[in-house]
Amino acid sequence: MSQYQFETQNRLALSGKRFFVTYKIRADSLSHAQERAQDICVEQTVEFPAELVPAHIVAQGMMGKIESLDAASPNFYTAKISYAVEAASGELTQLLNVIFGNISIKPGIQIQDLKLEECLLKFIKGPRFGVVGLRERLNIYNRPMICSALKPMGLSAEDLSVLAGQFAKGGVDLIKDDHGLANQEFSKFEERVEKCQKAIAKNNPESVYLPNITAPLGQVRERALFAKAQGCKALLISPMLVGWDAVRALSEDNEIDLPIMAHPAFIGSLVTSPENGMTHRVLFGTMMRLMGADISVYPNFGGRFAFSKEECLDIVRGCSEELSGLAPIFPCPGGGMTFQNVPEMLKVYGNDVIYLMGGGLFRRGIDLVQNTRELKSLVVGN
Amino acid sequence: MSQYQFETQNRLALSGKRFFVTYKIRADSLSHAQERAQDICVEQTVEFPAELVPAHIVAQGMMGKIESLDAASPNFYTAKISYAVEAASGELTQLLNVIFGNISIKPGIQIQDLKLEECLLKFIKGPRFGVVGLRERLNIYNRPMICSALKPMGLSAEDLSVLAGQFAKGGVDLIKDDHGLANQEFSKFEERVEKCQKAIAKNNPESVYLPNITAPLGQVRERALFAKAQGCKALLISPMLVGWDAVRALSEDNEIDLPIMAHPAFIGSLVTSPENGMTHRVLFGTMMRLMGADISVYPNFGGRFAFSKEECLDIVRGCSEELSGLAPIFPCPGGGMTFQNVPEMLKVYGNDVIYLMGGGLFRRGIDLVQNTRELKSLVVGN
Repeated sequence: MSQYQFETQNRLALSGKRFFVTYKIRADSLSHAQERAQDICVEQTVEFPAELVPAHIVAQGMMGKIESLDAASPNFYTAKISYAVEAASGELTQLLNVIFGNISIKPGIQIQDLKLEECLLKFIKGPRFGVVGLRERLNIYNRPMICSALKPMGLSAEDLSVLAGQFAKGGVDLIKDDHGLANQEFSKFEERVEKCQKAIAKNNPESVYLPNITAPLGQVRERALFAKAQGCKALLISPMLVGWDAVRALSEDNEIDLPIMAHPAFIGSLVTSPENGMTHRVLFGTMMRLMGADISVYPNFGGRFAFSKEECLDIVRGCSEELSGLAPIFPCPGGGMTFQNVPEMLKVYGNDVIYLMGGGLFRRGIDLVQNTRELKSLVVGN
Repeated sequence: MSQYQFETQNRLALSGKRFFVTYKIRADSLSHAQERAQDICVEQTVEFPAELVPAHIVAQGMMGKIESLDAASPNFYTAKISYAVEAASGELTQLLNVIFGNISIKPGIQIQDLKLEECLLKFIKGPRFGVVGLRERLNIYNRPMICSALKPMGLSAEDLSVLAGQFAKGGVDLIKDDHGLANQEFSKFEERVEKCQKAIAKNNPESVYLPNITAPLGQVRERALFAKAQGCKALLISPMLVGWDAVRALSEDNEIDLPIMAHPAFIGSLVTSPENGMTHRVLFGTMMRLMGADISVYPNFGGRFAFSKEECLDIVRGCSEELSGLAPIFPCPGGGMTFQNVPEMLKVYGNDVIYLMGGGLFRRGIDLVQNTRELKSLVVGN
């Protein structure tokens, strides 16, 4: 039985400009890898029986194209695939769909690299501040920064503001909400932001408070603007909870115009498997920059999470390497950071890093101001 | 050295109402599993050194609580953990954070079940239509439905509308945009929706068109309203691209008031590992209902994806089982469905299913109207 035939006078006209995604593919042999790579080319674009795609669509390059395919390690191959920039539709949502939409469901495919095309930068603006811009806003140069966290969940806004004041007095650079502080009855967002910001400004106007604006869709922007009106100079958000595109929208918002710290809550499944999802570098570096975050929080090696030192250094690379001209951002290792592991962290990370210490600052001793001063002295060296 | 002491007159007062999450945990022994489960209780709530959490916060039950812990299979244990409803902050975003925020990053933890508490339903409304509501809107009872897809990417709006008209003439119940059709230059959203909806209404007013409204944050609602104004009676969206909470917002929107089909683009990493993320049932059933989708698209067994028949049946269960009173929704298996595997699908799935056939309808023969009629006859039996 013959197949449906397309009849059309319409002709597609693509620019020929393409962007590139490198995938690690599990396969038994080179020919199997070739077959899987070709499947990606189809699945991520036309998603249609390849033999039935109208000739003019094929000729214009609408489908993905295998640019290179190499053996990587036993049972794994590296495929560099290019896509027409027009497929991305001038939208981050659709760009993500082309990169990893359907194939996210196929086991044994991992994103290893991404190269954008210049014309995509019309709609992918990337970080509004990045390393340079954040340093300018905070007036802190040539040294790492330190960040503490307001917690535990269950404290009142009043209690949290006392902590905030002590951290500020101790000279911490950044004070973030714990990412689990939302708008709970026992610590409502507005009351918390107002009280904490006041306590910080009173004790040390140079400390910057990052309230958590992770919230229902209609309230993200509202909370950001409220925080700004209270004098907050940066924001905390969890991209996977609000949607990656919500971060993009926030970073492009001229009325908000504040640096964004991205927290990895709910995002882990993209990196918990070594052969699916993305590499640590792509997720915590590349993707955070694509969506416009200025600071990428991730679990440090040696803490209570399982990231290795190599994975953390890969994240640093992803935050800082050349990426189609998008601004480098701050890696922000946290999650079980202690005074004991600071010396090793100082050896590993350079100047462009924000050290995040939560519980460790409370464990250190009875005086939170003093604990904070000690940490700062340890990191900054004075 | 002693530790920081909290001094506060504030006292937390929680209701004692809790919701329940069941996790599968990789562990070497029961005591290791106990330790990991306890870690979840802390990590997902106070995220703080357990010994330093103020006594009144512990006493009120702010931390997660292990309700049961059992051996499941070699190296795996099942932990049922309860959380205070107040932790969820009356927000889907924060509910998701409590369920799987930080621990998504810890390998060997998989969500297996979820039981909400009634008071959470004040803000978790679930599907607006569900199976019953969608059947009423479409006036189709006591039989499965069939759905086709407009593709391939690269066709013009005009070309796609010709296909839409043919599908409608063939009597297909639902016609969805391919999820990769966004707002590309060669097929702009508004032109496509207008032309396709017109072609469908002309050829068969009973066929329902679901345009893809996956879009940048500020445009999702706008596109939904445009589609509604054109006469579209349902919508297609990819939750992982727009953010899960955007689907919730859409489903609660009285002005939009249209059934929502959820597409799994970019969501796969949550199920590609057997020991991380979520089970198929939880992701494609429970979670879709939590966010308010009425139809859950997923890859059928035997197609070009790797889901097993058992996993697909688990999804059906997740779509239909009792879930704190939230409406059951339609499972929508697709992804490589062919005429050949329809008989087996009919045996496996009951009446409350939407069969999605994309490329298979084009492969069947030269007459798309006839192909569609054949499929409908095969599924509906007349």
